[in-house]
Amino acid sequence: TQIQQFFQVKSYSSMTALNRTALEEVLKKRFFYAPSFQAYGGVAGLYDYGPPGCALQANIIDLWRKHFVLEEEMLEMDGSIMTPAEVLKTSGHVDKFTDWMVRDLKFGEIFRADHLVEAVLETRLDGDKQARKAEAEGSVQPEKNKKEKKKGKIQTAVKLEDSVKADYEEILAKIDNYSGIELGAIIRKHDIKNPETGNDLSDPVEFNLMFESNIGPTGHLKGYLRPETAQGQFLNFKRFLEFNNDKMPFASASIGRSFRNEISPRSGLLRVREFVMAEIEHYVDPNNKDHPRFNEIKDLKLRFLPRVIQDEGKTEPIEITVDEAKIVDNQTLGYFLARIQLFLTKLGIKSDRLRFRQHMLNEMAHYACDCWDAEIQSSYGWIECVGCADRSAYDLTVHSNRTKEKLIVRESLAEPIVYEKTVLEINKKVFGPKLRQHAKSVEEYLTSLNEEQLEALKKALQDGNGGTKVPGKDGNQYEITNEYLSINRQTFTEHVREYTPNVIEPSFGIGRILYSLIEHVYWTREDDEQRAVLSFPPRVAPFKCLLVPLSNNPAFTDLVADLSKRLRMLSIAIKVDDSSNSIGRRYARNDELGTPFAVTIDFQSVNDGTVTLRERDTTKQIRENVDTILQVLKDLVEENVTWEKVMELYPTFVTQQLE
Amino acid sequence: TQIQQFFQVKSYSSMTALNRTALEEVLKKRFFYAPSFQAYGGVAGLYDYGPPGCALQANIIDLWRKHFVLEEEMLEMDGSIMTPAEVLKTSGHVDKFTDWMVRDLKFGEIFRADHLVEAVLETRLDGDKQARKAEAEGSVQPEKNKKEKKKGKIQTAVKLEDSVKADYEEILAKIDNYSGIELGAIIRKHDIKNPETGNDLSDPVEFNLMFESNIGPTGHLKGYLRPETAQGQFLNFKRFLEFNNDKMPFASASIGRSFRNEISPRSGLLRVREFVMAEIEHYVDPNNKDHPRFNEIKDLKLRFLPRVIQDEGKTEPIEITVDEAKIVDNQTLGYFLARIQLFLTKLGIKSDRLRFRQHMLNEMAHYACDCWDAEIQSSYGWIECVGCADRSAYDLTVHSNRTKEKLIVRESLAEPIVYEKTVLEINKKVFGPKLRQHAKSVEEYLTSLNEEQLEALKKALQDGNGGTKVPGKDGNQYEITNEYLSINRQTFTEHVREYTPNVIEPSFGIGRILYSLIEHVYWTREDDEQRAVLSFPPRVAPFKCLLVPLSNNPAFTDLVADLSKRLRMLSIAIKVDDSSNSIGRRYARNDELGTPFAVTIDFQSVNDGTVTLRERDTTKQIRENVDTILQVLKDLVEENVTWEKVMELYPTFVTQQLE
Repeated sequence: TQIQQFFQVKSYSSMTALNRTALEEVLKKRFFYAPSFQAYGGVAGLYDYGPPGCALQANIIDLWRKHFVLEEEMLEMDGSIMTPAEVLKTSGHVDKFTDWMVRDLKFGEIFRADHLVEAVLETRLDGDKQARKAEAEGSVQPEKNKKEKKKGKIQTAVKLEDSVKADYEEILAKIDNYSGIELGAIIRKHDIKNPETGNDLSDPVEFNLMFESNIGPTGHLKGYLRPETAQGQFLNFKRFLEFNNDKMPFASASIGRSFRNEISPRSGLLRVREFVMAEIEHYVDPNNKDHPRFNEIKDLKLRFLPRVIQDEGKTEPIEITVDEAKIVDNQTLGYFLARIQLFLTKLGIKSDRLRFRQHMLNEMAHYACDCWDAEIQSSYGWIECVGCADRSAYDLTVHSNRTKEKLIVRESLAEPIVYEKTVLEINKKVFGPKLRQHAKSVEEYLTSLNEEQLEALKKALQDGNGGTKVPGKDGNQYEITNEYLSINRQTFTEHVREYTPNVIEPSFGIGRILYSLIEHVYWTREDDEQRAVLSFPPRVAPFKCLLVPLSNNPAFTDLVADLSKRLRMLSIAIKVDDSSNSIGRRYARNDELGTPFAVTIDFQSVNDGTVTLRERDTTKQIRENVDTILQVLKDLVEENVTWEKVMELYPTFVTQQLE
Repeated sequence: TQIQQFFQVKSYSSMTALNRTALEEVLKKRFFYAPSFQAYGGVAGLYDYGPPGCALQANIIDLWRKHFVLEEEMLEMDGSIMTPAEVLKTSGHVDKFTDWMVRDLKFGEIFRADHLVEAVLETRLDGDKQARKAEAEGSVQPEKNKKEKKKGKIQTAVKLEDSVKADYEEILAKIDNYSGIELGAIIRKHDIKNPETGNDLSDPVEFNLMFESNIGPTGHLKGYLRPETAQGQFLNFKRFLEFNNDKMPFASASIGRSFRNEISPRSGLLRVREFVMAEIEHYVDPNNKDHPRFNEIKDLKLRFLPRVIQDEGKTEPIEITVDEAKIVDNQTLGYFLARIQLFLTKLGIKSDRLRFRQHMLNEMAHYACDCWDAEIQSSYGWIECVGCADRSAYDLTVHSNRTKEKLIVRESLAEPIVYEKTVLEINKKVFGPKLRQHAKSVEEYLTSLNEEQLEALKKALQDGNGGTKVPGKDGNQYEITNEYLSINRQTFTEHVREYTPNVIEPSFGIGRILYSLIEHVYWTREDDEQRAVLSFPPRVAPFKCLLVPLSNNPAFTDLVADLSKRLRMLSIAIKVDDSSNSIGRRYARNDELGTPFAVTIDFQSVNDGTVTLRERDTTKQIRENVDTILQVLKDLVEENVTWEKVMELYPTFVTQQLE
């Protein structure tokens, strides 16, 4: 839409390298988020969202619900976080949801093994690069500091053997896929120590990433905090299908907190121990993964990074439509990739910093047909923010096998399936009395025969003039005749087809999207790099409008109260700032909060009932009567009109106040 | 408002006794909620909300946010669930957030002690009542069944001694307030056994209701799942105050999941192990608990059940305004009680089944000044759904003491406070050299003296001609003189007042409100008690509009698709039902979902572009062109117009179809 383009064009942040320290300072000062329990020393990987962060998150979730749940009548549920161990045993999480950790053998400090190997080897490669550069420039390489070497500290500018360098590079390329034994071998082979202390490290030990607890007072019912919302959805499949009048395909969805007890969380909001997920489980017929609304997105171009390109060691995506791509396994998966892109760009994510990366074969779960990550570029690199996988029938099958609850679809066939089959019928009147205590043993053998074997038996009976010998389960041979049984071709007609649906799962990390979005909309004013702005689209902005009286003169009090009330009636989230700071300072503060509009009340307002409306990015203002301003504001906030259009319709108001 | 009254009047459900079994059947069939992990046997106290329950919950939360957070610019946050043990040790939860449990000594079954005593004594009193009735009617009392007595099974119709009966009644009146020792004594005195097995019970043992876990891989950082959102809010007090430009009073708020590891949960959604809370922490000056917007609610009548009435053993509330009541401790507490009532009735809670019960003195936490519960009547009795307590400065004080982080307000005084004070000044040049190694010990004694003691010391020095003896910390006496120190009256001027704010906390159990609401809006049609209706107000209803083609004739397909799209554009949550069921059956199904409106597409629609709009409670319809219907529907859903008004404006459409 037009609105989207308006906000897309202003890719301020993508043009210049981001000063993360400065951004983090703004986010802290404006209480977007902060480490939880900081007065108690804090806990790594746990964050509290303050008022702007909390409102931003709520607006992202609201948009998600409209874009996905309402748009496609998905069946949203809200399930339990505390999950009995048995459920997660079945899903594979108890056994496989683990990371490898190593321990400093002297001080006990714990590291995530792959992260540590990665960090040490990257540092060594950096040192190598510097050394080679210095060598090329003819400068003398400083002698190794023996003490530092002994302590295992990070060595700068040490040149590596070419073969070692190649070795390191190969390890880094495969770092996500090593087993614990392999990581241990790498640590020993390349003499990797704790970089802080230089101490030796333990062998890698598996650590399950689920928080464990006990349910109830007995201590006998172990539970875990869910690592994803998906399992709760799968377990309600039967209820969903019934709710949907047994119609396929359909999707369930869930938004909620999940937990991962990370070994050593870092990277701010990108790797945390508690996070909000929004997950869709779209159930399809495995024989037909077309999507009824595929046409609506077929012309949208996406930036794909398929497996074949990655295999060549390249990272430049190709920008084509899903239909042209031919690399996405099926229409439904492709449909969701396009819908994900539409959602993210609507939020304010820059499309040139978004790509869809296909999982490598060894990266996917064994049951997955295909998997694509929506990766967003931030100062931390390309980060997976949405995963979109075809999980096949795996989850429904394992839960069904474990619980004996049928998780299937029964489809009435318009054309019944008619087929012939060779079947065995035992004549119980003869079979039992004749074979006596051996009857059961022989029957077991006979019922285990397939069609081909039955035909062979039939032939044997014919060849034997109506008699032959068959083995019992006990290994002995028993004589049977045509009187005992009959073997015939019969015609069957099936009116219902039963199948286990496949699941296409788009899974969103809301916190990661939120943080990436903040980086994408962050910029500083050209004239003053101290003046930061967060250019959230109005729909997503934490607060929609700042309400400022020119000063704290009591003459403004009634007007502020009246306008606050009218804005609240319009459900517009406002922030009143009647502090004694200068008007420019107060505007600047709200630029940092990303508040797109400001209504200012001055002495003229008291006299003639007009107020000014300021837009955050342009800092331009218009001045009209209150009724007009409120209508314009409502249209702007609901994104029914752009600020550009408003500027065309109303004269620009030039104020003498310095911002 | 008018709209509210419209929905208030239709108190169908309050008129007849509720058939809970029938209601639960409807809620299960329509997947409002269901026990979590049922295929795995389920876990008591854990529930999943299906699509209608989830949407209902989201709508209640949305209304809560508008009614409280947006309306009063509260500072909403979203904090961590996993909480380090130290935080909850300070708040008192580690030591006091417990219930008493008893164990069947033979089979190990565990009961919550107070609930068990309550159940057994109530059963015995019931039996007594029956026996007395039978006696009065002259019928013969059946002989006691010896076997049953031995097994301790519930005995029916057994008359109790008058003194025993009085004893039981007193115990039940005080059941919430017994210690474990007292409960143990009651169990022994009144020979209370496991009613199922007749086995003896253990002494009551304390059980902490928090789920426990470990944070990170070390096993040394114990954490609990938060039992409330409040502590996370208190720990951010400094950030909130700064965000609010240091202005008082203000409120923080939080909506989120909390956890209580109940001993034996029962009563459906009313006592669960995981629940959504919405909590407000309103910070006030302890010297001034007036509320700036008190006037807005001062004429609203509430049904109060104050302590004095409960002391008389009565339960009939008095219906008066907060102002008239004079029993609510302060304006802010009273303001919130009124706002809570407005919120609950807006949701659809019947005001005649809502009361505000004041806590008894022994029921309140020791630090609370006053506490009122909003109790809603359902088939489970009067249930606390919102607590509203004045927690004084307790929480901020304990966290501040523990962490040494100042959690205070600094108020610039318009009029500085001027006061005189007797102060001690030590002359370091003389004091140290003269007293040498004893100096520190004597100084400690001197600085510990209050004003009165300092005046006494001054007098002693005067009386002793400038010399006297004082004790050191070591117990010895030391000679001091006027040269060592001076004691004088000095004048102080303070421009800033520092204080720890008090906290008024309205705390909402969203699940309890949701369930109570369902009971309040549930009724069955007079002509057919199989036909259940849930009369949610439009704003709260899970789905706003049912879209039904008359049949699954392909002629309707395009119109259904087009109307779906237009309704989604209006952000109206719809449910399309194009199943082959009769139109009446489909209406009935959506009455059970509480969907207030239905748009029906028939053959006339295809010809002339008109559709019908049906209202759930009256089953009346109008027929207009699509544009008009969409506008009317939007106004109805946003509660800008009532159905009564719509019926005045448009002719009723009479259909020949039987519902």
